[in-house]
Amino acid sequence: MRFKAELLGIESGGPHIVTLSKDDAYELGVRGGERVKLHFNKKEVYAIVNVVTKSVQKGILGIYDEMMKIEKINEGEYIDVEVAEFPESLHFLQNKLKKRKLNSIEILEIVKDVVRGNLSDTEISAFITALEINGLDVEETTSLTMAMVETGKTLNIGKTPICDKHSIGGVPGDKSTLLIVPIIASAGLTIPKTSSRAITSASGTADRAEVLMPVDLEINEMKYVVEKTNGCIVWGGALELAPADDRFIQIEYPLSIDPLLLPSIMAKKKAVGANYLALDIPTGRGAKVKTIGDAELLAKDFMELGRKLGIKTHSVITFGEQPIGHAIGPALEAKEAWSVLQGDLKIFDLVDKSIHICSLIFGMAGIGVAGLALDILKRGKAEKKMREIIYHQGGNSEIKIDDIKVGTHFLELKSETDGHIMWLNNQILVEISRAAGAPRYKGSGILVHKKLGEKVKKNETILTIVSEKTTQGHNVEKILNEVKPFFIGTSQEIIIHTILDIPQTKKTFIFER
Amino acid sequence: MRFKAELLGIESGGPHIVTLSKDDAYELGVRGGERVKLHFNKKEVYAIVNVVTKSVQKGILGIYDEMMKIEKINEGEYIDVEVAEFPESLHFLQNKLKKRKLNSIEILEIVKDVVRGNLSDTEISAFITALEINGLDVEETTSLTMAMVETGKTLNIGKTPICDKHSIGGVPGDKSTLLIVPIIASAGLTIPKTSSRAITSASGTADRAEVLMPVDLEINEMKYVVEKTNGCIVWGGALELAPADDRFIQIEYPLSIDPLLLPSIMAKKKAVGANYLALDIPTGRGAKVKTIGDAELLAKDFMELGRKLGIKTHSVITFGEQPIGHAIGPALEAKEAWSVLQGDLKIFDLVDKSIHICSLIFGMAGIGVAGLALDILKRGKAEKKMREIIYHQGGNSEIKIDDIKVGTHFLELKSETDGHIMWLNNQILVEISRAAGAPRYKGSGILVHKKLGEKVKKNETILTIVSEKTTQGHNVEKILNEVKPFFIGTSQEIIIHTILDIPQTKKTFIFER
Repeated sequence: MRFKAELLGIESGGPHIVTLSKDDAYELGVRGGERVKLHFNKKEVYAIVNVVTKSVQKGILGIYDEMMKIEKINEGEYIDVEVAEFPESLHFLQNKLKKRKLNSIEILEIVKDVVRGNLSDTEISAFITALEINGLDVEETTSLTMAMVETGKTLNIGKTPICDKHSIGGVPGDKSTLLIVPIIASAGLTIPKTSSRAITSASGTADRAEVLMPVDLEINEMKYVVEKTNGCIVWGGALELAPADDRFIQIEYPLSIDPLLLPSIMAKKKAVGANYLALDIPTGRGAKVKTIGDAELLAKDFMELGRKLGIKTHSVITFGEQPIGHAIGPALEAKEAWSVLQGDLKIFDLVDKSIHICSLIFGMAGIGVAGLALDILKRGKAEKKMREIIYHQGGNSEIKIDDIKVGTHFLELKSETDGHIMWLNNQILVEISRAAGAPRYKGSGILVHKKLGEKVKKNETILTIVSEKTTQGHNVEKILNEVKPFFIGTSQEIIIHTILDIPQTKKTFIFER
Repeated sequence: MRFKAELLGIESGGPHIVTLSKDDAYELGVRGGERVKLHFNKKEVYAIVNVVTKSVQKGILGIYDEMMKIEKINEGEYIDVEVAEFPESLHFLQNKLKKRKLNSIEILEIVKDVVRGNLSDTEISAFITALEINGLDVEETTSLTMAMVETGKTLNIGKTPICDKHSIGGVPGDKSTLLIVPIIASAGLTIPKTSSRAITSASGTADRAEVLMPVDLEINEMKYVVEKTNGCIVWGGALELAPADDRFIQIEYPLSIDPLLLPSIMAKKKAVGANYLALDIPTGRGAKVKTIGDAELLAKDFMELGRKLGIKTHSVITFGEQPIGHAIGPALEAKEAWSVLQGDLKIFDLVDKSIHICSLIFGMAGIGVAGLALDILKRGKAEKKMREIIYHQGGNSEIKIDDIKVGTHFLELKSETDGHIMWLNNQILVEISRAAGAPRYKGSGILVHKKLGEKVKKNETILTIVSEKTTQGHNVEKILNEVKPFFIGTSQEIIIHTILDIPQTKKTFIFER
């Protein structure tokens, strides 16, 4: 049957949807939720049907935004519609439910159909759940990674080697990328860094960098910046490096599973042409990875996949039980990173972590002597390089530290006793930062004045909670009535937790990818 | 934020969806595909957000049909909307992904949220996939069944015992329910039979019965018929006996899995108050269950679950390698059943199967002597009872066999050789019947003149394909160019099939439920 396209101007947030009038749907023999095949411009595409039950003209095919954009459909265009058989990729996907191994051709077909919107949320969810429960072997993981690269854009810098770093995240206040990129770039190595925005955290690297410069670059703009400066810090979301992952993560997130973590991360590294990758795995109570054993296994998986993809990968397991540095929240963190670039090396954990990761990269690339990274930082070369990057990304390269504006409403949390900081709760610190407005309000966040093991006196300020608006302060107070972000004591308490009711697991955060 | 409801008149075919303008969505902090919580009339309900990107008034909340119906939302009603936390049932569901056992309270919460539309397709799909891969134990199966009953309507006939029968389907032409219900009812036992329409088959019992009388009854109408006649044959779809199953089956179908088969079937039996159930498991090549061993295992599962639910269940494994009787298609089958009710007992397999299942039920109920069922049939008591049921369901109780109209376009398939019928392919017979117009065109279908093992002569008619429209005959011819519905030979061929390319599994049919 032939229809006329009408652009509905509705975003479904994922699958390709078309609407049909009730009569047309009956005549075609489809019901809401079923699949049709569209023919136009010599293309064949699938879509899920929603049925318009209100009075509506016959012969109209309503088009949702996602489909309009990907398939470039115009208002009034004629489209032939028929009931669809199931796409072939659905049969492959069903085999994974039966614990069968998928080959690279089958995986590519599935990923292509994910990107084209040919598979419904229901079907992708079943696939992801089956991957989570039945697992993927190294070959399947490699095929998935390559399929994600193949169905996306790639960055082609005519240079070698291309260096990269990645943290699986989970530790608040980790602004080390803002130091690592300029250090690596000023040593003459190429580092086209893509980062994510916060989803469940207080700040992503893209949020931090955005305080200093635009990060919403397109792939050609990114290429230009890297060609000019050897580096960049851009948001990965607009680059379409592995567009399948946008659908995957949307489905994984509510389910709290991430079987596609490795392919997702490594596909984006492969897509920018990385040869050397330094991987940071923050570990410990309050981090995503709890034990060193688990961190080692994760590192092994990354390194194996890296080998298959031709990306030499070195990993570093870092202490993840408290924030990095003293600042949490986009602007507060950008400011802290800036102070380090300007030579303030007192923030030991941040400097140490950044330097160590730079040394890993220098080691893989076979350049530099011990102390090169610190030297670059001390001599102000990293600051100079960062200003170049800011300039080419379209920011103010003359920026001074006081230009970085932070919130002006403060709430101070003081110690009620003498003692030592026994623990800081990352998750609660993130919750407080978000209540204070981060990451949307860039100036909101927390300043952590005392860290693990530090001696404190009664009435000494431990945390300053910074917010842009008064109401945000109220939100924070509500949380503080319920939970404590730190504990001060003289010795570790032996009782950790008493369980009186069936405990509910609560979602906390997702791995950065 | 407060919104005004606008009824969109769109059926999504499942989940509860609302639309927000782009600005409103940004202000609320939600994106397409994410979840919001609606407050109105002292109710709290969840919905998935679609974002309207076209010019649209702020403050308008678009409501899809499913939500409007279930939550009874009126045009212009004020609704408060906030970003939703994940529903608690999602955490329970996640535990099943981790292979943990679910208790009855958790399962009830999940099923409630499925019915209320609080869980998205993505989430339900993950749940079903996890059930498929990780399995359910007897307690979980029982809890799921009871949760499906609890969240639906129930039939309360003030009598005992209530009898029921069920076939898992898969064999074309099985019209035995049209005989069993009047036989059981005329013996004084109560049998409130609900049936399904064809989804992938040529005809469901509801389609067959609809040739004789209305089957779209509501639960109170059904109750009335059963009170008057001891029996009924109604479509289960409008009764809301286990509404969760409508969502489950929609998601299971494209995935070709059915971990909820047992709870789904048994919930509907429990909801009509069944005490005795006769379960028919057609078995063999070309049936859903291929081997007697598999059929026995399935019977065991049903009987165990039946015991937990207080439904005494006896099973019968029947030969499923060819159609039952000679007719396939709603009207052709109704006509064949009617001829048996009028005393034509030559259709041996159909009569034998019906009588046997009736005897099983009589045995459980402890009534009757050997031969009671056949006696009821022979003496015309079943026909009389069927006319009563037809009358109370609103059909023509004076119906004559020639009133049952069938298609007038015929295509005869003749034998090209002397020999015996070596096989009939159920699946291809269904495909042909559907191409001929069944089940939508009730008069279309197939007459099977010769069955397994029967001797045939060259040029003798094996099949007559009946269709209502000429074009349907053309569709059938296309299929016949590609596949053969039967094989005539003198001995079984030793080579079954040669495999030259990687075989693709193709969806064939689903279990009746």
